[in-house]
Amino acid sequence: MSGEHILKAVDEELGRLRERIERMGGLAAGQLEASIQAVVAVDGAAAEGIVRDDEHIDTIEHEVDALVVRMLALRQPVASDLRMVIASLKIASDLERVGDHAKNNAKRVAALAQLPRIPAQGIDRMGRLVLAMLREVLTAYTERDVERATAVWQRDAQVDAVYNSVFRELLTYMMEDARTITACTHLLFVAKNLERVGDHATNIAEQVRFMITGTPETDERPRVETELPGTPY
Amino acid sequence: MSGEHILKAVDEELGRLRERIERMGGLAAGQLEASIQAVVAVDGAAAEGIVRDDEHIDTIEHEVDALVVRMLALRQPVASDLRMVIASLKIASDLERVGDHAKNNAKRVAALAQLPRIPAQGIDRMGRLVLAMLREVLTAYTERDVERATAVWQRDAQVDAVYNSVFRELLTYMMEDARTITACTHLLFVAKNLERVGDHATNIAEQVRFMITGTPETDERPRVETELPGTPY
Repeated sequence: MSGEHILKAVDEELGRLRERIERMGGLAAGQLEASIQAVVAVDGAAAEGIVRDDEHIDTIEHEVDALVVRMLALRQPVASDLRMVIASLKIASDLERVGDHAKNNAKRVAALAQLPRIPAQGIDRMGRLVLAMLREVLTAYTERDVERATAVWQRDAQVDAVYNSVFRELLTYMMEDARTITACTHLLFVAKNLERVGDHATNIAEQVRFMITGTPETDERPRVETELPGTPY
Repeated sequence: MSGEHILKAVDEELGRLRERIERMGGLAAGQLEASIQAVVAVDGAAAEGIVRDDEHIDTIEHEVDALVVRMLALRQPVASDLRMVIASLKIASDLERVGDHAKNNAKRVAALAQLPRIPAQGIDRMGRLVLAMLREVLTAYTERDVERATAVWQRDAQVDAVYNSVFRELLTYMMEDARTITACTHLLFVAKNLERVGDHATNIAEQVRFMITGTPETDERPRVETELPGTPY
């Protein structure tokens, strides 16, 4: 192949990589949104679909991994191309875990259906916040927008604050009525899953920044932490 | 540089990469072990040290990332060398998260110290199991031992089974005495952290296998799941 042909092949493969990440991101965000709705509405049929569909995300992650190994071996990209390849590998891993968290939320719906109903507005609010962060960081990836990525990174402290309030609310229900304990522990884990998705969105924001600027995020990520006994971390 | 010199440079850098992963693995396993002991003994001073030391693991992860990008850009490794570079990048990410889980366990000790004591033998047993898996997979990495890695991969089902029994035990305490609820929720999250460490050990096992054989793990990972309401996932 001539030099020009090789460059064209690299561009095509980078495009294919970006397309895979975007598709994976869309699926992961869709699964997450559906899982939050299924938990809030205690919708068992929807939850089963979410558990089933998780494998599509896993399949794309394997495709990304294979494409990355192939590109590194055959095209030996450098500079910003290399950073995009490395960042895509890491972002795929984060998105796969977002899918896992959505699946874990969905699996809890079958148990919740057989237990007393717990008000889940806090979960709903936290879910919307985290979903908005995830969608925003995926847009930052597509549009190669560092400022947008940095803004997502800074919003993680909000998620921690909402998580703390959801945690306290669920503890209160459990203490007031022991019959709610099992359902509340499931919702505690749903809240924890959402908090982890917020962490993955900030990881992706860091990768988008690295991909575009070549410099890793250095400031300590903003966090809300309290020292009261019984507060979550 | 002559061809021979380049090969020597590649070998030296691969050695440095392996040395970093081994050091990171040793630190992560040490932090995990200390965090389990701190939770079981409710040892606040030990817990503070664990939280402080987590940054050492993060620092090595950044070194690994930088070394990987440098090697891919300058040495353009192929075949088994390339697989080792990619696997090391992913293993570093898993070890960083193991460190995070140890730190999260440790952070809960300050809260546990102000709450009623809960028997934590289940946590202790689960912790030993997960720690043994992690140490075993690190040995598999160092000795490039596929069989050892596969054996770790197969043990993840045991962790899920112990997790389920710990979860049920903690639910029972909470239902019997509402004053234990806050402490028990902290221990539930410690158990969840340990379960996640088991997942990271199996991820590392898959990377060791890929690194040595070039083929990804294809069989569905063994899992214990039950359909009773109130059982964890």
